[in-house]
Amino acid sequence: MAKEIERKFLVRSDAWRQHLCKSSKFLQGYIITDTDRSVRVRIKDMKCATLTLKIGHVGLSRDEFEYDIPLEDGLEMIDKATGSVISKTRYNVEYGGYLWEVDVFDGAHQGLVVAEVELDNPEDDPPLPPWVGREVTGDKRFSNQWLATCGAAAERRNGVSLKA
Amino acid sequence: MAKEIERKFLVRSDAWRQHLCKSSKFLQGYIITDTDRSVRVRIKDMKCATLTLKIGHVGLSRDEFEYDIPLEDGLEMIDKATGSVISKTRYNVEYGGYLWEVDVFDGAHQGLVVAEVELDNPEDDPPLPPWVGREVTGDKRFSNQWLATCGAAAERRNGVSLKA
Repeated sequence: MAKEIERKFLVRSDAWRQHLCKSSKFLQGYIITDTDRSVRVRIKDMKCATLTLKIGHVGLSRDEFEYDIPLEDGLEMIDKATGSVISKTRYNVEYGGYLWEVDVFDGAHQGLVVAEVELDNPEDDPPLPPWVGREVTGDKRFSNQWLATCGAAAERRNGVSLKA
Repeated sequence: MAKEIERKFLVRSDAWRQHLCKSSKFLQGYIITDTDRSVRVRIKDMKCATLTLKIGHVGLSRDEFEYDIPLEDGLEMIDKATGSVISKTRYNVEYGGYLWEVDVFDGAHQGLVVAEVELDNPEDDPPLPPWVGREVTGDKRFSNQWLATCGAAAERRNGVSLKA
């Protein structure tokens, strides 16, 4: 079991592309969700699958259990996911000694670009790259779970801006 | 991914004990449940842990994905289970060429004894041992999920009999 500590920002320019190291294509779906917990399946580059349980409220720190599972199982679970399946490309970007992950969404969430930095402890204060915009750490509307299960619909209904 | 096909009965006498092969002690809890799916953690003999996702309505056949996980993870999940943790001893009993599992519950469900036989296909017609009583296949009130998340409370409220 790991603790997940991260900060999340919207991205306002493409300048991060000059720093990027590598990228992967993710498909992910939620098998089952509740207010404070979720079970997610993720397919990476159509080659491997992981199952992730998160327990605790969306925010700076949650309990996370993650296991590799057979790709075939993962694909069957994606078929049975609730809500919409998230499709995105994740770019790894090093900035100021920290590894940032920039997620460029397509499909139902095309146009949304989010940057996350993982912290060893909550007091870490990473330098912010010039290409990040508004911080959305702890804002459940930008969690993948929310995007998958109610994101697109709620954006239309409430006029919530996904822009930086 | 496996299909689970089984019939379930209440047990009306202790006569099955003369046939028993081996037994294991199970602790199990539900991490998250919804109407047609659940995620369960099971600790066997305090030695190993498995995580099981079931998708589909409770009944004769459901999709089931099962993975071994570290015992330490399993025990942490049991701590975070929703509802009550189920504690039972499972006895393997061979009868008429079929393997029956007799679950003797303790803790919150003391007094409940349930026998299940797993079938290779829904047309299988195993001979019924004389010690089984009322069939409860597909009755969600006798699913472990229901027993863990609302069983004890509902039994008190509705006077539902758990007896054979």
